[in-house]
Amino acid sequence: MAEKSRILVIGGAGYLGKYIAEASAKAGHRTFVLIRQSTLSNPAKSSVVESLKNHGVSLIQGDIHDHESLVKATKEVDVVISAVGGSQFADQVKIIAAIKETGNVKRFIPSDFGFDMDHAHPVEPVASVFGVKTEIRRAIKAEGIPYTFVNCNAFAEAILRTFAQENAAAPPRDRVVIFGDGNAKAIFVKEEDIAVYTIKAAVDPRTLNKVLYMNPPANILSFNEIVALWEKKIGKTLEKTYVPEDQLLKIIEESPFPKNLMLSIAHCVFVKGEMTNFELDASFEVEASELYPEVKYTTVDEILDRHV
Amino acid sequence: MAEKSRILVIGGAGYLGKYIAEASAKAGHRTFVLIRQSTLSNPAKSSVVESLKNHGVSLIQGDIHDHESLVKATKEVDVVISAVGGSQFADQVKIIAAIKETGNVKRFIPSDFGFDMDHAHPVEPVASVFGVKTEIRRAIKAEGIPYTFVNCNAFAEAILRTFAQENAAAPPRDRVVIFGDGNAKAIFVKEEDIAVYTIKAAVDPRTLNKVLYMNPPANILSFNEIVALWEKKIGKTLEKTYVPEDQLLKIIEESPFPKNLMLSIAHCVFVKGEMTNFELDASFEVEASELYPEVKYTTVDEILDRHV
Repeated sequence: MAEKSRILVIGGAGYLGKYIAEASAKAGHRTFVLIRQSTLSNPAKSSVVESLKNHGVSLIQGDIHDHESLVKATKEVDVVISAVGGSQFADQVKIIAAIKETGNVKRFIPSDFGFDMDHAHPVEPVASVFGVKTEIRRAIKAEGIPYTFVNCNAFAEAILRTFAQENAAAPPRDRVVIFGDGNAKAIFVKEEDIAVYTIKAAVDPRTLNKVLYMNPPANILSFNEIVALWEKKIGKTLEKTYVPEDQLLKIIEESPFPKNLMLSIAHCVFVKGEMTNFELDASFEVEASELYPEVKYTTVDEILDRHV
Repeated sequence: MAEKSRILVIGGAGYLGKYIAEASAKAGHRTFVLIRQSTLSNPAKSSVVESLKNHGVSLIQGDIHDHESLVKATKEVDVVISAVGGSQFADQVKIIAAIKETGNVKRFIPSDFGFDMDHAHPVEPVASVFGVKTEIRRAIKAEGIPYTFVNCNAFAEAILRTFAQENAAAPPRDRVVIFGDGNAKAIFVKEEDIAVYTIKAAVDPRTLNKVLYMNPPANILSFNEIVALWEKKIGKTLEKTYVPEDQLLKIIEESPFPKNLMLSIAHCVFVKGEMTNFELDASFEVEASELYPEVKYTTVDEILDRHV
């Protein structure tokens, strides 16, 4: 477990990828990020690029669509982690092709990092958009590439910053919109913790060809529980508007893309409880907080404390 | 122009597609909608399905991924209009293949219905997501399929219902968030008018192998102008929060998918003014309100009146 590896992060300047690249470097792995020229010259990315460099990450100029650059980067490493965003899920067939060609990669983690589609029953358009992840998983297995598939559940900071209230800049102080009855349990994992667990799993023989879930027990909470926790902290009762499931489904139907995508994700997570309504199959599904009890993950409670 | 045609709408039970299918039927065209079994049995879709039937639209059970059903439906018609949502833009290669195979289609309108990517300079992830539209346009041209490409600009009802303030159910009465300085001009077209223009263009020789823009003069407005119009109507001044471009770009970078997609679209439309910062090239670009002055389009002013 203490073995040091060579890890390539694709999408390593993105929302989650930057945490993964930095967690990799912090763990002592030789870390590479495939980065586009356009990212390097993008002022909005300069602080991310700077931070990667400060962490000792090696930036390799290239692109998922530039096969040669992808093969060159892949040849350098034992582990490839893709953290590409939702618009590039399908493009990961190009990473699979590069890994097949070089033949040296001992572990590939594709970009999943959400809830498990195999256990979910999503409506459109999330069914199509996230369904691509399932196709990528199938292609990886079909090619015989060693893998770990990662379901990290909800990005805790992204959601708790606004309680999924769009156009808000902070958690609600007056009123809150709750989808469904608010009782479905979801799972929240802080982005940096997702990165730490992912890097641990990337070099762990126990996660080889397994599906990794991040279900830290203290962070399995319903929306109502989170709101109650928050109300206690701010000493105030929020005005709650519940949007029943049938109404939400109607709004999804009546909203153009990509608003319907946002809402159909919320439907899966907060109304259907798709993160928590199944049991893990120990033969091929493993859980991060059990595998890595040494990780002191950040709790929802601690995250909310910082917002009070 | 009075000639009646046979029109197939794919995605015809979707957000925009239902208006297109109904506009086609109202215009007297024999109208077909390719519809999935799952859509037919979806309670959230029942009112849409009912409405299509009431308009005399013929529902053909099938799917874009079921080649046989697609070929069968395509064989029946002169015009194919795709109104598939953003998660299926790339899948339109399957429609192209079916049209090639049958050889009888005189006009194909792929699913664009936004702003023109060829004139825009979008940031990610909208660059990738909507960039697929450009690839589909290229593939249609390469295959020699007769086409009209439609840039309808912003869905007026969808945007004006909440002034693009997410998690709102109505236009703002107290405060409003404005991206950029609010001065970039955007173009708003009511969904039903988009459908009427599209159906007119679908059988119009003047739009053959052309790009159609919908730029109704009364609906070319900046966000500030819309807010001012609204303030006058409700007799109240809103508290305005401006999000400068560099801050918005930073928020996009720091938001996970698909929130970053929503925001990158807003950046294009409301900050960069990508709908209005170019001139049409008369050799291959035509404008709907000029071609069809007989259409009494709904103005932004009229839409806002209904919300007062």
